[in-house]
Amino acid sequence: MELLEKTIIAITALDSTSMDQAQKRQNQLTKPLGSLGRLEDLSVQLAGIRREFLPELKKRAIFTFAADHHVVFEEGIASAPMEITAQQVSNFSNGGGAVNALAKHCGAKVIVVDMGVATPYDRKDSVKNKFIAPGASNIAKGPAMSREQAVRSLEAGIEVVLEELNSGLHIIGVGEMGIGNTTPSSAIYSLYTGLSPQEITGPGAGIDGELLKKKVLVVEKALEVNKPDKNDAIDVLSKIGGFEIGAMAGAMLGAAANNIPVVVDGFISTAAAYLARNLNPLVDNYLILSHHSAETGYGHATGYLGKKPLLDLGFRLGEGTGAALGISLAVAASVALREIATFDEAKVTDIKKL
Amino acid sequence: MELLEKTIIAITALDSTSMDQAQKRQNQLTKPLGSLGRLEDLSVQLAGIRREFLPELKKRAIFTFAADHHVVFEEGIASAPMEITAQQVSNFSNGGGAVNALAKHCGAKVIVVDMGVATPYDRKDSVKNKFIAPGASNIAKGPAMSREQAVRSLEAGIEVVLEELNSGLHIIGVGEMGIGNTTPSSAIYSLYTGLSPQEITGPGAGIDGELLKKKVLVVEKALEVNKPDKNDAIDVLSKIGGFEIGAMAGAMLGAAANNIPVVVDGFISTAAAYLARNLNPLVDNYLILSHHSAETGYGHATGYLGKKPLLDLGFRLGEGTGAALGISLAVAASVALREIATFDEAKVTDIKKL
Repeated sequence: MELLEKTIIAITALDSTSMDQAQKRQNQLTKPLGSLGRLEDLSVQLAGIRREFLPELKKRAIFTFAADHHVVFEEGIASAPMEITAQQVSNFSNGGGAVNALAKHCGAKVIVVDMGVATPYDRKDSVKNKFIAPGASNIAKGPAMSREQAVRSLEAGIEVVLEELNSGLHIIGVGEMGIGNTTPSSAIYSLYTGLSPQEITGPGAGIDGELLKKKVLVVEKALEVNKPDKNDAIDVLSKIGGFEIGAMAGAMLGAAANNIPVVVDGFISTAAAYLARNLNPLVDNYLILSHHSAETGYGHATGYLGKKPLLDLGFRLGEGTGAALGISLAVAASVALREIATFDEAKVTDIKKL
Repeated sequence: MELLEKTIIAITALDSTSMDQAQKRQNQLTKPLGSLGRLEDLSVQLAGIRREFLPELKKRAIFTFAADHHVVFEEGIASAPMEITAQQVSNFSNGGGAVNALAKHCGAKVIVVDMGVATPYDRKDSVKNKFIAPGASNIAKGPAMSREQAVRSLEAGIEVVLEELNSGLHIIGVGEMGIGNTTPSSAIYSLYTGLSPQEITGPGAGIDGELLKKKVLVVEKALEVNKPDKNDAIDVLSKIGGFEIGAMAGAMLGAAANNIPVVVDGFISTAAAYLARNLNPLVDNYLILSHHSAETGYGHATGYLGKKPLLDLGFRLGEGTGAALGISLAVAASVALREIATFDEAKVTDIKKL
């Protein structure tokens, strides 16, 4: 609990001096004012986060947290067998996942973290072991985990960020792997946005018809049975969350406390963002939503976060794949701010001065 | 005319065998079917264009065609002095432009082409000299150029692509620099979409109020005075176009004829796409729209092209800046197709086979 508390109180407002300097530079670059749109705003946010007016995002990492969820198997709403979580963790550690391909493309290393994979597998040394329990318990019957386990999952997310800080870190993405994790995420969305499970719950990796109706009932039941207190994120996480969801929220807090921008992946990681901002609303300033997830609830709920994702390409994969593309855009924003010549440098007429 | 005709007839349909193979591979990759959304479709399109089922987009180039437009100065609707076109060409050749920064980010070289820059400047050897005349004539009073010059501008665009082919080329972006070129572009949009100049014409680099009203009148006049034949793209280009607009259309045709995907930048380059597809509708298959330009007419008119741009970040800069980000996404699509492991390779359960 000490690490969590220390981290939460270490998060501060963005550095307005660096932001002012970055905005001032944007206005002097050889282009019409504001003509790089959201990339200009992003560059200013990055300056405020990194506390330097020309942030350089050289060291990039995507954390992919993995864990299982018994609810979807016990309630018969799973889109795929549980073993796939373990198989995909192995696939990621061999470099064969979608997240590996897109992380390579954006120049980020992938750090896979086992938070609670239920199926036994040959865990490579490259997979960080923060295992708490073999999958979150059935949230339609009771809590996902104990309060103590919830704190541990949050702290595990903080720890992996701190561990990576030692080798240099300028931006992170957070993503996940866990068959069934749209179910707890839908419950978290519903709780925080006030929208009904019916409105929020979608097909996940691919269920529909009767199975989807059943999933809505399961999400409703999870909220009824557990009665999570939305003002207490640890209560929410322990009752209707999951180990990888807690770890993602922890990673967001850990990054924010260390002035590192966090690119949020998709549906599940945005549920984690709800928890992180409940623990300290200042974390919001450090978050960048990468893409508009194709999962039903995402569209209804982003308004609640008051942020617009950078991309909308119909992704519904998770793992950190959307975060990879978001990191690429963040790097583009910082490169533009750093490298475009000013009117003075390039001897180009500044029409604002005419 | 010979090069243009030869190029136009050399454009073929996409290779359906490579596309089928690419789609089949997408379905075997370790992710839910379709979960990478538009990136999957893009990878299949790229396979069809490149005629190989695992396209690799290593050699990338962005062509930035520059030319001036007397109409905006003679009619008093310019957003900036004409000299900026020349100053920015120098800036690009020194690596200081926004397009240089973003091209570097996506691993593309920038090829600046002088098609008709009116203001004298110290033209470096790195700037390709395809100069036709010092700026397009006032389209509110008569044609922009002669029919012969229109053909030359199209062929110049083809030539620079062919010249670059020798050192290897797998994907290109097309962009432009030319103070005032939203005016002829608005006229082209209006002609092809049937929407009025009032609906299409926007602020360009930043005019409003009375000046914007005047710009609408100028676009109306350009269409009335010249009466371009929309079924004859060369007529359209010569009457209401510009040298850089013709060159962009030529580059699209030249790339398509050589199985090279073309990432279209923004508002102006999309006007060039209207011309290219009029010369051979098959060119459409080779075009990728990079971003939704913030310029007014763009939103009204993309429906006409039947394509949705990949990004919407509020860009309104041109130069090839949006194309750079589009190239990055195309590369991501090809990397995902090539590098994600299949279910068999990764020993991950394929639920489609359960």
